[in-house]
Amino acid sequence: MELRTATLLSLAASALALASPLAATPSPTAIQEGGQARLRGFSARSAADQRALEAKVLEIPKAEQCRQFLRVLTEDPHPAGSEQGKVLADYVRSRLLEYGFNAELVSYEVLLNTPKKIEVTMVEPQEVKAKLKEAGHPWDKDSFTNAALPHFHGYSPSGTVTADLVYANYGMPEDYERLRELGVDVREKVVIVRYGKCYRGVKVREAEERRAKAVIIYSDPADDGYVKGDVFPRGPWRPESAVQRGSVGYMFIAPGDPLSPGWHSSKGSRRIEQAAVTGVGTPGAVLPGIPSVPLSYEDAKPLLESLSGANVPEGWQGGLPFAYHTGPGPARVRVQVEVEWENKLIHNVIARWTGTQNPDEWIVVGNHRDAWVHGAVDPNSGTASLLEAARALGKLKDQGFRPKRSIVFCSWDAEEYGLVGSTEWCEELAAELGKKAVAYVNVDSGVSGANFHASAAPSLARIVREVAAAVEAPRERRSVLDVWSERDRARKAPAEPGYVGGDGEAPRVADLGSGSDYTAFQHHLGVPSIDLGFGGPYGVYHSVLDDFFWMERFGDPGFESHRALARILSVLLLRFSQADLLPIRPSATGTAILGHLEDLLRKDAQARPAEKPNEERRKAVDDLKAAAQRLISAANAMESDAERALEAADAGVLDSVNSRLLRFERELLSKEGLLGRPFYRHLYAAPGLHAGYAALMLPGLHESLFEAPRDEAKFLAEARRLTERVAAAAELLESKGAAK
Amino acid sequence: MELRTATLLSLAASALALASPLAATPSPTAIQEGGQARLRGFSARSAADQRALEAKVLEIPKAEQCRQFLRVLTEDPHPAGSEQGKVLADYVRSRLLEYGFNAELVSYEVLLNTPKKIEVTMVEPQEVKAKLKEAGHPWDKDSFTNAALPHFHGYSPSGTVTADLVYANYGMPEDYERLRELGVDVREKVVIVRYGKCYRGVKVREAEERRAKAVIIYSDPADDGYVKGDVFPRGPWRPESAVQRGSVGYMFIAPGDPLSPGWHSSKGSRRIEQAAVTGVGTPGAVLPGIPSVPLSYEDAKPLLESLSGANVPEGWQGGLPFAYHTGPGPARVRVQVEVEWENKLIHNVIARWTGTQNPDEWIVVGNHRDAWVHGAVDPNSGTASLLEAARALGKLKDQGFRPKRSIVFCSWDAEEYGLVGSTEWCEELAAELGKKAVAYVNVDSGVSGANFHASAAPSLARIVREVAAAVEAPRERRSVLDVWSERDRARKAPAEPGYVGGDGEAPRVADLGSGSDYTAFQHHLGVPSIDLGFGGPYGVYHSVLDDFFWMERFGDPGFESHRALARILSVLLLRFSQADLLPIRPSATGTAILGHLEDLLRKDAQARPAEKPNEERRKAVDDLKAAAQRLISAANAMESDAERALEAADAGVLDSVNSRLLRFERELLSKEGLLGRPFYRHLYAAPGLHAGYAALMLPGLHESLFEAPRDEAKFLAEARRLTERVAAAAELLESKGAAK
Repeated sequence: MELRTATLLSLAASALALASPLAATPSPTAIQEGGQARLRGFSARSAADQRALEAKVLEIPKAEQCRQFLRVLTEDPHPAGSEQGKVLADYVRSRLLEYGFNAELVSYEVLLNTPKKIEVTMVEPQEVKAKLKEAGHPWDKDSFTNAALPHFHGYSPSGTVTADLVYANYGMPEDYERLRELGVDVREKVVIVRYGKCYRGVKVREAEERRAKAVIIYSDPADDGYVKGDVFPRGPWRPESAVQRGSVGYMFIAPGDPLSPGWHSSKGSRRIEQAAVTGVGTPGAVLPGIPSVPLSYEDAKPLLESLSGANVPEGWQGGLPFAYHTGPGPARVRVQVEVEWENKLIHNVIARWTGTQNPDEWIVVGNHRDAWVHGAVDPNSGTASLLEAARALGKLKDQGFRPKRSIVFCSWDAEEYGLVGSTEWCEELAAELGKKAVAYVNVDSGVSGANFHASAAPSLARIVREVAAAVEAPRERRSVLDVWSERDRARKAPAEPGYVGGDGEAPRVADLGSGSDYTAFQHHLGVPSIDLGFGGPYGVYHSVLDDFFWMERFGDPGFESHRALARILSVLLLRFSQADLLPIRPSATGTAILGHLEDLLRKDAQARPAEKPNEERRKAVDDLKAAAQRLISAANAMESDAERALEAADAGVLDSVNSRLLRFERELLSKEGLLGRPFYRHLYAAPGLHAGYAALMLPGLHESLFEAPRDEAKFLAEARRLTERVAAAAELLESKGAAK
Repeated sequence: MELRTATLLSLAASALALASPLAATPSPTAIQEGGQARLRGFSARSAADQRALEAKVLEIPKAEQCRQFLRVLTEDPHPAGSEQGKVLADYVRSRLLEYGFNAELVSYEVLLNTPKKIEVTMVEPQEVKAKLKEAGHPWDKDSFTNAALPHFHGYSPSGTVTADLVYANYGMPEDYERLRELGVDVREKVVIVRYGKCYRGVKVREAEERRAKAVIIYSDPADDGYVKGDVFPRGPWRPESAVQRGSVGYMFIAPGDPLSPGWHSSKGSRRIEQAAVTGVGTPGAVLPGIPSVPLSYEDAKPLLESLSGANVPEGWQGGLPFAYHTGPGPARVRVQVEVEWENKLIHNVIARWTGTQNPDEWIVVGNHRDAWVHGAVDPNSGTASLLEAARALGKLKDQGFRPKRSIVFCSWDAEEYGLVGSTEWCEELAAELGKKAVAYVNVDSGVSGANFHASAAPSLARIVREVAAAVEAPRERRSVLDVWSERDRARKAPAEPGYVGGDGEAPRVADLGSGSDYTAFQHHLGVPSIDLGFGGPYGVYHSVLDDFFWMERFGDPGFESHRALARILSVLLLRFSQADLLPIRPSATGTAILGHLEDLLRKDAQARPAEKPNEERRKAVDDLKAAAQRLISAANAMESDAERALEAADAGVLDSVNSRLLRFERELLSKEGLLGRPFYRHLYAAPGLHAGYAALMLPGLHESLFEAPRDEAKFLAEARRLTERVAAAAELLESKGAAK
C-alpha cells in the first residue's frame, strides 16, 4: 500500500500528545503493517503509547543536523591513536552529554602500528617507483589533506623484500590451486592480488601460508573502478590513484588488542609478547608474519603489465587495458614497509540511559568513530545517524520520557585495526553483558546510498523488518520495508539453490559474518546483534576520497538516508526498550539451523556423490535435526503463552518469557570455542577462516567437511556439541518456571 | 583407447597394397572404432578395400605442402573482383589440373561495391579524425601491404551523415529495448555498436529499422582483444588498430548476387534495379539503406569516451579503460562512406571427378578463396587443406583408383560479400544438384587452432564422428574424435537446459546456420551439408593480420591442423564416394525435430506461464510429433533393411535405399520458402532474422511464437506445413519400391 507523505505527516501530527492513547487513529507504523490493530510485543494499551511515542520520535531527526554532524566528524583524518581521534571522542561525548546522557570516555591501551616509510619499487625489467599518492580534486578541499597516514596496512609488520612478482587473482585458496596447476610457485615471491571477494587479512594469511615473502593488494578497476561506472569526481567509483587502506590483522582468528587475548588491556595491564601472536606458523596468531601494502591501480598497472608467463585463467582478467599474466617475473619488485609498533590509548565513548522498570536489561547500540582518513561513509555516516537518534531520544527525555529498559550508546575506537575498542569493552564487561545485554545494534558504514540492507541473528530478523515498515524510505513515499522488499524480489537468485541465510523469510536479512563491532557481541558473548544501513554505488572505501564532498555529491545528496537511518535506530531502540514482550524470535534460529544443515549436507553429497552417509553420521544428523525441531516447538509454544499473557496482562508470564529470551542466544555458545579459535564461541556462525568477513554457517560442521583434511570424526563431535547446545536452548525455553 | 603413432604407421604401411583385402589386419580406422570388424555402410568385402584405401590416402597429406599452399594463397590481398583474385583462381585451377582433375573457371558477373573514400570524424566535443589504419609489425612483411582495400563494409551504401552518437552494445533487439527503457532514442543518430553475438548485417538492419542514420561497428577489446589474452604480435588476439572488415548485406534474407535473386547472373543476363533490393522498408531487400563502417578500438576509444548520458546497463561495459555511457552525445560524429557499385566478374573453380559406378551421385566439397585481405585463416587455411586433399586423391588417381560416385571440388569467389559464388552456382545448377548432390562438405576458415568443430545436417552428424575417429588429432597420438569428445565433455553446460542441437549425440555437431557457402546447398536446395575445421584463439578475423605470419606463429605453427584437415576431407570424400550404403541417417533428423520442438514449446510455456495451449494447438503439435516419430520409424526400418542387404550383397535393395537417402533432405523443403524469405526453403533450420549467422530451428514455428506480433494462426499453419513435409519424407523412406 502506498501512502502519501501528507497523510503520514498529518497522522503523525495528530499523535503528538505523548500520553494519550490513540487506538482509534492508527499510526503510520500500524498502517504500514496493513492496518493490523496491535503492535507485536505490546499489549493493546502499551501499543497505543508506543505508537504515539514513535510518531513523535519520527518527527525529530533532521537531514540538515546529520549533515552538520558529518561535517564535523570528517573534517580531519582521525585514525585510532591520533590526536584528532581524541578530539572527536570528546566531541561525541559532549554531544551525548548535551542530549542528557551520562557519557564517559572508556579508554584502553592497545597495540597499534603506524607507518614510517612505505615504498614499492619495480626494479626489473625497468625501474618504476610507485607514487603512493592519492590525487586531490580542486572542488574537494578534504582530498588535499596532508594529515593522512601514508598508504599502509594496519598490523602489517615491517620488512623489506625484493623478489619476482606473481599475480594471484583475489588470493583465495582456489586461486592458489589454479596457480599450482599452471606450475606457478609463489614461494619466496612477492604476490600481487586484487581486492575483493574476501577480507584482506585472509589474502595475506593465504599468501603467508604458501611462503610468499610479501603481498601487494591493489584495487582493480573491474572491482570498484571504471568497469563499475564513472569514477570520482564524475561518479562514485574509485579513480586510478585512490588506494584502499585497511587492516590485515587475522581478526577471523580473534579481534581486539593482539597482546591481551581474552582480557581488556588497560594502561600497564598484563600483555603477552608480540612474537607469540605473530606469523601463521604460531598457533592462534593474529598478526601477519609477512609485510603487505595496498596499491592503487595507477601504481599496480606497470607491475602487472610487466608480468610474463601464461595468460591468466578465466575469471582472473581485471579491468586494466592489457592481457593479464601470472608471472613469475620478469617484474621484480621491492616492497619496503617500516612501521612503528606502540601501545597507544584509544577511546570509546559510552553513555548509559538507565531504564525505569528493567534497568538490568540493556539495549546496546554502537558504531566506531575511527577512520583511516576522513571516513564519511566508513564510519561517520553511521555515527552521524546514531548521534541524531541520540538527539531525538534526548528530546523525548527532555519531555519526561524514560525507557523501561536501559539504552547504552557506544562510540568505538580502533575498529579499523581489528574491532579493538568494542572487543576490549566486551572483554572487560563480559560477565555483565552476558547477564544483561538484550541485543546489540550496530551501524558502521551506515550510509553510502539509499538501499536498505541488514544482517542479524536470525532471532532478530523479524524486528528489523517490522521497524523498516515504520519508517519512510529516503526520497520515497513508501516505507523502507516496501522499497527493500521490491528490490529483494528483483535481486537475482543466489548462485546456490535452496537456503540463503538468516531466517529464510523475505526480504532477506543476511547472517552476520565479521568485519564490524557486532563481532564480540554476537560471536563471543552470544548477544544477538543487528547490523544495518543504506548502501549504494561506493568505490572510495578506505581512500582519502571517502569524504564529505563524496557523500554530499554521491552517497546521500540530501542526507535523507541519514535521517531515515536515525529514525530506524530511534524506533528500533524504543521497540526494544518498551516492549512488553522482547522482540526476539528463537524459532527463527531453529529454522535457520535446519536450513543451513540441509545446505551443508547437500553440498557434501554433491562433492562426494559416491559416498553414502554411515549409520553414525545419519544418527548425528537426525539428533541435530530433532534438537532444532524441539527448539522450534518450544519457541512456538512459548510465543503462544506470551501472546496469551499479553492479552491477559499477565506480568509474571511475560517476565519469565523475557528472561528466557534474554538468555536464549547465550545457550548457543560453547565454552571452548571453535577449534583453534577460542574467541569464536557461537556455534551457529563465525567468520570464515578463508573468507574473512563472510559468515561461515554451522562452522564446526562446515570445517570438518570442507577443510582439508576432511574429518568425519570431527563432524560427529561437532554435530554432537551443536545438538547439545541447541537442546539446551530448547530446554531453557521450555522451562516455564524460570525466574530471572 | 590410445594408440601409439608407431603402431599406427606400421599398420598403415602394411596396408599399402591397394587391391588386396586386409580383413585380418584392421586399419587404424577400425581400431579406433573399438575393434569393430566392419565399417559402417560397407559390406565386409568392400570394407577391406576401403580400409586399405584410407590407410593409403592418410599417408599422403604433408604439413609442409599445406604451408606452401597457404604461402601462395596469402601472398597478396585478393578480395572478390580484384586482379589478385583472378590470379589465385588460376593458381587453384592449375593445381587441380596438375592433380588430374578437369578444373575450369565458372565465372559470374555480380554486384560488388568498392570503397573510394571512408572517413569517420568526431566533430563534437572536439575534432578527432579516425586513423583507419592498421599498424604493421616489422617481423610480418604482409602486415605492411598497400594493396588492402580501405576499411569498409561490403554492401554498405554511400552516404555522409553527421549526427549525435549513441552506444547500443551489440546492437541486438534486446539492446534497443534497454535503450528505450532508459529513454534513449536512436532515431536520426549515428549508432555505435560492438562486434559480437550476431552477424554484422543484423546490427545494421536492426539500426536501420529503428531509423538510425548510420552505424559504426567496432571491435571491443572485451570481445576479441586484450581481455581475451595477449594481442598481436605477443599473442593471437586483436591489437588496438586491427579492424574487422566484412559484409553488411542482409544475407539472412537471401545470399548471392543482389540483382539476380533466384537466377545466376552472367555477363549481360537479366538484372533488377538496385533500388528494388535496397533499404529495410523494401520487402525482401538484401542491401542496407544506411551507411556503416568498421572501426578498430583505437579509433572507437575517443568516440566512446566522449559519450554522456547514463552509465551503461549491466553487461554493456566493454574492455576500454573507462566507464561506458549510452549517449546521445556530446560526441557528434561525421561518417562518410563513398563506394563505387559495379557488376564485376567473379570466378569459381570447379573440378569434376566422375564416378565409375554412380556418376550421377555427386559429393561436392568446397571453400571460398576470396579474402578481405590476406585471409590466412579465413578462408585459405581451408583452401590449402582442400588442395592438399585433392593432391592426395590425385595420387590415388595416378595409381589407378577411380571413385564409384563423382567428386566435385569447388573453390568459390565472393563469399565475403554474401556467399555470392556458391549461391550463383547453386542457382545455375539448381535442377541438377537437386537430382544428383548427395552431400556438400564445406571448409572455409578451416584452421585457426587445433580444436575440431563441426556443424551439419543432423543426418550427417554420425559420419562426421566416424571420420573423426579415423584421423589423428594434430600433435596428439589420439584420434580427432577422442580429443574432440574430451573437450566436448568438459565444455560448460549450455545456458538452456534440454536439447542442444543437431542429433543430440556427443560430441556435439552443431546445427548449420548461415555465414558460409553451405547456405545455398543446405537451406535452398536441401543438399545435406557439413561444415568443419579446427579452431583456436583467433582475434584477427577480417583484419590485415589474418596472414601467413599469424598462422605460422599462433594458428598452426607446424601446420599439423592443416594436415589433419586434409586427411579428414580425404577420408570423408572417400567414405561418401565408395560406401555401399550412403552415410546419411534420416532418423537423426526426426530426433532433432522432436528435440527442437520440445525446446520451443518449453520456452513458449515459460514466456507465457498462464496460457494453456488450446485444442487446435495441441492437435497440431501432436500431428507434428507423430510425423517425426513416423520418420524415425521409417528410417530405422530402412536402415535395418539396408543392413541386411549389405550382408546379403543385395544390390537392388541398396540402390533403392541409396536413392531414397539421396532424395530424403529435399523432402524437407517448402516450395514457397519462409515468410518474406523465399530463398530459405528448408523448414528444419534457417539463419535467424535477428541473429544472422546462428541457426534458427524450426524457423516457421519459432517466428510465429517469438517474433512480434505473436501469431497463433501462423503457428498452426507452419506446424501443418512442417508436418506435411516430415510426413512426405517418411513416406519416401517407406516407399521400398522406389527406383532411381
